[in-house]
Amino acid sequence: MKNPPSLDQLISALKVLPGVGPKSAQRMAFHLLQRDQAGADRLARALDRALANLTHCERCNTFSETPLCNLCAEPARNQHQLCIVEMPADLLMLEQARCYDGLYFVLMGRLSPIDGIGPKDVNLDKLMVRALDGVVEEVIIATNFTAEGEVTAHMIAELLKDRGLAVSRIARGMPVGGELEYVDSGTLAQALYERRQLG
Amino acid sequence: MKNPPSLDQLISALKVLPGVGPKSAQRMAFHLLQRDQAGADRLARALDRALANLTHCERCNTFSETPLCNLCAEPARNQHQLCIVEMPADLLMLEQARCYDGLYFVLMGRLSPIDGIGPKDVNLDKLMVRALDGVVEEVIIATNFTAEGEVTAHMIAELLKDRGLAVSRIARGMPVGGELEYVDSGTLAQALYERRQLG
Repeated sequence: MKNPPSLDQLISALKVLPGVGPKSAQRMAFHLLQRDQAGADRLARALDRALANLTHCERCNTFSETPLCNLCAEPARNQHQLCIVEMPADLLMLEQARCYDGLYFVLMGRLSPIDGIGPKDVNLDKLMVRALDGVVEEVIIATNFTAEGEVTAHMIAELLKDRGLAVSRIARGMPVGGELEYVDSGTLAQALYERRQLG
Repeated sequence: MKNPPSLDQLISALKVLPGVGPKSAQRMAFHLLQRDQAGADRLARALDRALANLTHCERCNTFSETPLCNLCAEPARNQHQLCIVEMPADLLMLEQARCYDGLYFVLMGRLSPIDGIGPKDVNLDKLMVRALDGVVEEVIIATNFTAEGEVTAHMIAELLKDRGLAVSRIARGMPVGGELEYVDSGTLAQALYERRQLG
């Protein structure tokens, strides 16, 4: 006694999703087939549409349906600043903070030798071409403060130094509204170490 | 600044999967588009194929690509016993235990008023027709021992009593290899309560 082949194929196909193992894949397949066939069809169509339409912006490398994404096409943005982030979600967070009017470069990942993600996978070649176009004057590295994000930041800084660009990293420190009693000691140590002179 | 529409549609479509919220859906979409486009295509095809090919076995209600599933079509199975389970995965587990040669009925769910899952959603009408076909003599209720599974078992037992069928429930008790010191007290209480006379 086995599952019908098309059910087994669906369960196996769902395992491509990150964080989904055999048990969750089975639960997802049963849920879709039993309770939400319309949702399953919508998912299949959305996958097809995304695969067919989405490409990478030729300047900033984020997902885009056009060769140049909306943000890169905006003439009002400051063309001299380039902020480097890991993923499109990070770009959206920075935009929501409304603190930056320059342009971005989206790596689409972080260096992670353990997972087999090397410099090619995070588009460092494309970044070099973009950053050294002669218009960009300042590069702000805004990768995450995880081990992988820090390694990525370090690598990018090494590649860009001595090229006549101002290279900076976004600051570490206490979060806004943060209380010393509740913050982790690593963050507190960094906040002390990177203290700013007042007055 | 927003995501391109086909990316937003994919993220939103992934949220139909059980246990997947906005953040996981976004992570899944990025993973598929960035690291596994072949997997994304395979998933879309598997969804289409499963939706097109899978139906419910007309006798036991499990997923099947044919009107009668392989198991129901086997003449060697004991036609007088009917074991009721919640999901096809439960049926597979029982088959792996190689302890039962009767037939099955798969509810495809459990009663759960909180989630809006009532008698119609777990195919109790179809179960009645199947159990009262005149050939079935014994019904074994093997729903899970969760709150919902127990309610479902109780409801089925109520519907089937006084119909000339032997109705039973699979036993609760200590697991094979279980040690009293490590088993939960509810299971231990049931094992004591449902103790069997020896000799």
